[in-house]
Amino acid sequence: MSSVHPDPGPTNAGRVPASPSISRVRVRYSETDQMGVVYHANYFVWFEVGRTDLLRRTGSSYRDLEAEGVSLPVIQAQCEYRLPARYDDELEVRTSGTVLTHVRVEFTYEIVRVADGALLVTGRTMHAALDRDGRPCRMPARVRALLDDTSA
Amino acid sequence: MSSVHPDPGPTNAGRVPASPSISRVRVRYSETDQMGVVYHANYFVWFEVGRTDLLRRTGSSYRDLEAEGVSLPVIQAQCEYRLPARYDDELEVRTSGTVLTHVRVEFTYEIVRVADGALLVTGRTMHAALDRDGRPCRMPARVRALLDDTSA
Amino acid sequence: MSSVHPDPGPTNAGRVPASPSISRVRVRYSETDQMGVVYHANYFVWFEVGRTDLLRRTGSSYRDLEAEGVSLPVIQAQCEYRLPARYDDELEVRTSGTVLTHVRVEFTYEIVRVADGALLVTGRTMHAALDRDGRPCRMPARVRALLDDTSA
Amino acid sequence: MSSVHPDPGPTNAGRVPASPSISRVRVRYSETDQMGVVYHANYFVWFEVGRTDLLRRTGSSYRDLEAEGVSLPVIQAQCEYRLPARYDDELEVRTSGTVLTHVRVEFTYEIVRVADGALLVTGRTMHAALDRDGRPCRMPARVRALLDDTSA
Repeated sequence: MSSVHPDPGPTNAGRVPASPSISRVRVRYSETDQMGVVYHANYFVWFEVGRTDLLRRTGSSYRDLEAEGVSLPVIQAQCEYRLPARYDDELEVRTSGTVLTHVRVEFTYEIVRVADGALLVTGRTMHAALDRDGRPCRMPARVRALLDDTSA
Repeated sequence: MSSVHPDPGPTNAGRVPASPSISRVRVRYSETDQMGVVYHANYFVWFEVGRTDLLRRTGSSYRDLEAEGVSLPVIQAQCEYRLPARYDDELEVRTSGTVLTHVRVEFTYEIVRVADGALLVTGRTMHAALDRDGRPCRMPARVRALLDDTSA
Repeated sequence: MSSVHPDPGPTNAGRVPASPSISRVRVRYSETDQMGVVYHANYFVWFEVGRTDLLRRTGSSYRDLEAEGVSLPVIQAQCEYRLPARYDDELEVRTSGTVLTHVRVEFTYEIVRVADGALLVTGRTMHAALDRDGRPCRMPARVRALLDDTSA
Repeated sequence: MSSVHPDPGPTNAGRVPASPSISRVRVRYSETDQMGVVYHANYFVWFEVGRTDLLRRTGSSYRDLEAEGVSLPVIQAQCEYRLPARYDDELEVRTSGTVLTHVRVEFTYEIVRVADGALLVTGRTMHAALDRDGRPCRMPARVRALLDDTSA
């Protein structure tokens, strides 16, 4: 977003990727399982927290987006688990986003344990922009402006 | 339930309470927590499974009810925990319902471990009938007919 | 419990109830249901967040308590729903606790919508103190010292 | 993969892949979100139901496996969403498994709507076999015998 450099020059359209959005979550007891660690599906919920915070940077929220008639349902999701999060751990969710096409956006995530900076999981979700009738629609301009746009 | 007797007689209008609806669930790993037992909030989800199955006895489902514009949000919920359910346990949810007033209904629940018949929890939820605009509305006739009706 | 009177006197040590612990949560998309509001069982998860934060006031955490061999499983839970929480709402969980007996403690909760101060739900959970073998045990001194103690 | 031919011959040891394990789930209200469909993370829970049922074919359960000291934590998970599941839908989870190496196994999933046979999602999870100390260990023989074994 910043892109503060002396002379981009005409051939260097040079969009500098925004820094990732940072969210904090603390692991709830309900999120653990009998292995004594976080149940794997819950990381996808934290990814949701992460992209909600990222989208808030547009100046309005995902809630507003839905109110305007645009939703971003998940069409693909994936996660790699390196180290387990545990009850009461403080975690940092680092989220970045990229506009893939006029109607698709991808978010990538890293979840880090605050205590020691260890990277616990990485993940990715792909989303379609849908209008009220469930048909693909263009990503709103403020979302495109916020995210790295590879669809241009 | 029982009420097997030769002649109830005219003074015994005697609405016989329906037998409870029986649902089966098997405990999922996701439903456990690091204590090695089911996380307490999940019993309320199984109560929901129980009353959904009970309402299906009306010949249509709670899904149909909502499609017709009547919802039954929970306005009070309570649970007593006697013995913990564990991963992979098969459980029986026994659900009964009572119409309290024209606009309120109560369900009661027992959850029993199938392996040995042990009673694990008992609970109760109270619900309001609301129309599409969120205003209290009369419980549909087929729901009143199904459940013990104390509102008459 | 309150002890506002002119002269407590030497025999009335006059325990002043601690102010409730305040926790903040923001409603996640995963916590909503198709009624467009928060699914009722999720409030019990926020109650857990509230009592975890309250117990942290003892100077150590519930995680530490479990590490020392004492757990506080829920033996009764209840919630009254007044107004629904919605996606992305900021909520305040206000938690108080009382030691009921040497082996039982109760927490009470109020969940308030930050935007307008509306009281959404109230609730209560009762817990038993159990040792590693699952037998009732005395509540640790620091927990008794923190909470209103009616067991003396 | 299919191996229906007259004479496999001595050089074609021809392991016939087992048919997928079939599990049935019905969508719970708690599993929906305010988009009116199932929240995307919940499909991973149904995948868990699927592989639990598949492993039960070994003659013992995943619960037994953990009791013997072997756990199979998820190290990678992924899902593609084609069509949304909705409240009260009956779904069929079709699960297959493959032993990848001595210490890794992969499960693949299809979730189909029973009413019309529509394929809603496909997914995949990879798991490591760990012993009680959290160290990689050999997959038990009965699991290897059950699943397609590509590690030989």
